[in-house]
Amino acid sequence: MSTPTPIRAWAAQEAAKPVVPFSYDPGPLGAEEVEIRVEHCGLCHSDLSVIDSEWGPMPYPIVGGHEVIGTVVALGGSTRGLKLGQRVGLGWLSGSCMSCPACLSGQPQLCRAGQPTIIGHHGGFAERVRAHWLWVCPIPEALNPAKVGPLLCGGVTVFSPFLNFDIKPTHRVGVVGIGGLGHLALKFARAWGCEVTAFTSSESKREEALQLGAHHVVSSVDANAMKAIRGRLDMVLVTVNVMLNWKALMGTLAPNGRLHLVGVLPQPMEVEAGPLLGGQRSVSGSPTGSRQDIDTMLEFAARHGIEPQTEHFPMSRLNDALDHLRAGKARYRVVLDADFSQA
Amino acid sequence: MSTPTPIRAWAAQEAAKPVVPFSYDPGPLGAEEVEIRVEHCGLCHSDLSVIDSEWGPMPYPIVGGHEVIGTVVALGGSTRGLKLGQRVGLGWLSGSCMSCPACLSGQPQLCRAGQPTIIGHHGGFAERVRAHWLWVCPIPEALNPAKVGPLLCGGVTVFSPFLNFDIKPTHRVGVVGIGGLGHLALKFARAWGCEVTAFTSSESKREEALQLGAHHVVSSVDANAMKAIRGRLDMVLVTVNVMLNWKALMGTLAPNGRLHLVGVLPQPMEVEAGPLLGGQRSVSGSPTGSRQDIDTMLEFAARHGIEPQTEHFPMSRLNDALDHLRAGKARYRVVLDADFSQA
Repeated sequence: MSTPTPIRAWAAQEAAKPVVPFSYDPGPLGAEEVEIRVEHCGLCHSDLSVIDSEWGPMPYPIVGGHEVIGTVVALGGSTRGLKLGQRVGLGWLSGSCMSCPACLSGQPQLCRAGQPTIIGHHGGFAERVRAHWLWVCPIPEALNPAKVGPLLCGGVTVFSPFLNFDIKPTHRVGVVGIGGLGHLALKFARAWGCEVTAFTSSESKREEALQLGAHHVVSSVDANAMKAIRGRLDMVLVTVNVMLNWKALMGTLAPNGRLHLVGVLPQPMEVEAGPLLGGQRSVSGSPTGSRQDIDTMLEFAARHGIEPQTEHFPMSRLNDALDHLRAGKARYRVVLDADFSQA
Repeated sequence: MSTPTPIRAWAAQEAAKPVVPFSYDPGPLGAEEVEIRVEHCGLCHSDLSVIDSEWGPMPYPIVGGHEVIGTVVALGGSTRGLKLGQRVGLGWLSGSCMSCPACLSGQPQLCRAGQPTIIGHHGGFAERVRAHWLWVCPIPEALNPAKVGPLLCGGVTVFSPFLNFDIKPTHRVGVVGIGGLGHLALKFARAWGCEVTAFTSSESKREEALQLGAHHVVSSVDANAMKAIRGRLDMVLVTVNVMLNWKALMGTLAPNGRLHLVGVLPQPMEVEAGPLLGGQRSVSGSPTGSRQDIDTMLEFAARHGIEPQTEHFPMSRLNDALDHLRAGKARYRVVLDADFSQA
């Protein structure tokens, strides 16, 4: 199959400016590389963080997009387990070293040489995207390709703690934040069999949280409500990237409970030793998941009918989609649908 | 066997004053209680913290001492697994509710109704001491009763993280602080099979750390030395109760690494989300261990010939021993030897 060059894309040329049409020559396909024709691509808050240089200076031009759904259009000679025309997904990482302790122990998401899809590499807001075969994930037929993209980053980010920190169906799980990540966390926690408590500071999301799977909704700004669930939760999954009342949240943890972060915070959090020691509690964090975590999640999502709640924009309206997300209006995850024939 | 009342002891009548002779009537022996004649009792820094009201106001008079070694002199009618004359030990806890989730799941050290031996209960700086049978631990014959006391609190505090956080002999473990707890942590970590790194701010302890079991000694105040072990350790066990350069210590952790606290800190620690997320790291804490943890530790200590390095004072010189510890001179654990015949 021919792979025409160059690749048409949408790129940020500098921080906090509109993206513009951009095309690049991807060069010869590497032996371990896969080329994917993009059909849909989720928009993640970390696309904004990178495009807007919120995490520090970034190497522009930046082609964002790391919740890719598409089909395989080219395979290098040393790729494994994939075939042309297959529907696949691609998430936060597009490569890993394969040989460090993290990679060798099946945790390539912790590889220090991991290649993010959108930093120093061009992502999925494009006609086509390339990645190392390891990170190109077959999509089960039972999942709707137009909606499944956000599982590839947002989904596995909240799903992998259930896998990797031994969360059991008998556990009580809290989810802080009902947004792109949080709404998926509520669905996964419910399907996992847990008692699910949603924390939100906006009373308007109460009904929606219940519909998404929460058994209980607690206002994180109501001191009495926070006291009423003191010592109850086995894991509190923090899906937001803002500073919170950590002391009150730690107070909701049962003995052996874990406060788990999946969002980068703007400043250090203050942690008191007392609640850690007294109840053998932990504060922890994790990035995305491994390829195996993604595959496991997709199978679980297919079995339980879990999909993101999405809003769709044609990719040619990427700037409108970015502004929609910047304004905090996404309910709950934006997906860009490829329309390069018209570009 | 008769149990004469009252019990002679040494008590603090107010904060930071010398202890004085004190006697109390323990009342009728409870059905689940055991009375122990004290032969030796370790002196732990938490005795000082309680006697001096460092953790807040305490209910005086206080009879400290919670690293008791002695023999059973009386058994209530509903006690289990013990016999008169048996050599036993008693640590931080003298009772737990037996019926809460923590107790029912074999983690009575996390019981919220746990009864500390020296707070609201009279401890082992005394002729005799009482406790619920669950917390009265048989001492293996292979261990020297004059030296083993400090294992009952200091020992199990640093040993239980190895048990309860799944530390493997293939792991690399760091120990911060070479003192009452730290010197035991070094011995346990070495016997556990780990690569052991001792962190110390006092260069004078380097040789001693190596003799105690460390493979490597790193100056925690040497920025270059700290950089040289970046990303290497699977667990860093913090045995001190002072504020440290948490960022530098977090930096020594490998992916999945754990910074684990066993000492109460005077103020909240600042934890950055980045290293937690990027490497799936944790910050955690634990109190003492369960009765089963203590039994397992004693068996392990007997097999590996592990005992505390002790200094001995007759119990009638308890004030001298307290001052020795207050002055930071203990190398590494003080034991009081009962001498009530002369009291």
